[in-house]
Amino acid sequence: MDNELLAGYLESTIVAKIPLAREMQVRVAGYDGNSLVLQAPLAPNVNDKGTAFGGSLYSLAVLAGWGLLSIKLKEENFAGEVVIHESKVSYRLPVTGDLEARCTAPGEPEYTRFIEDLRVTGKGGISLEVRIMRGSRVAVQFSGSYVAYRKSK
Amino acid sequence: MDNELLAGYLESTIVAKIPLAREMQVRVAGYDGNSLVLQAPLAPNVNDKGTAFGGSLYSLAVLAGWGLLSIKLKEENFAGEVVIHESKVSYRLPVTGDLEARCTAPGEPEYTRFIEDLRVTGKGGISLEVRIMRGSRVAVQFSGSYVAYRKSK
Repeated sequence: MDNELLAGYLESTIVAKIPLAREMQVRVAGYDGNSLVLQAPLAPNVNDKGTAFGGSLYSLAVLAGWGLLSIKLKEENFAGEVVIHESKVSYRLPVTGDLEARCTAPGEPEYTRFIEDLRVTGKGGISLEVRIMRGSRVAVQFSGSYVAYRKSK
Repeated sequence: MDNELLAGYLESTIVAKIPLAREMQVRVAGYDGNSLVLQAPLAPNVNDKGTAFGGSLYSLAVLAGWGLLSIKLKEENFAGEVVIHESKVSYRLPVTGDLEARCTAPGEPEYTRFIEDLRVTGKGGISLEVRIMRGSRVAVQFSGSYVAYRKSK
């Protein structure tokens, strides 16, 4: 499938279905078939200290993982839902400018096992890493365990 | 200090300083000297499945811990900042109605050590648990490690 089409589909889904993401002004900055990048400006996501609010950083990260899996299910032509199950986040540096989260597709054999579980049992789980950088340093490291399942008709 | 006064101070700070919390319509539902309860309606915090967005649940939880510590610093008459350092969150059940997060003050000897560290070194760390219930069951369990430090003049 066309990567630009998938990115546009994801952005319109996020904006239409998740009002908080709309308030955060989340946009899909790119999808290259392997990595998904989401961005949001600092202004609507600021905290009392003038840096990015921890809840905004988390929301952008959790959406990056959710978005990557949503796109992957589209590519696999699998009508499914994706939910976050557990996550861990480490705030290493304050984010002082606009927010950008990058999630890279999981490697093998995890990805193939996930898709096989989905097709065979209708449910699959997978872990994803998301990073928010500040220049060349990792500002926020997010690890999320997601579950996908077949959409009920 | 007066608990109602502290709750009002916290709510006005959150609304004034954190635009995303304003969009979430976060309010301080109560503070009794030991537990802080934050609430937010479902509508602005909904996801694509019609339940509470994971980023909203996380944001309410992280604010409950942050708010409790901010109130505690006021009670201690300590001019400090509070930041989230690390957190873990487990989503056990979807939240299908309005959101309510409860954070209870840490026990002893952790609390006394935290305050002593703050007074002596100007910096202290402490872990807090926050729960979001669905009826009598825990829907979201949040564990946050926070750092407080003396505000620079």
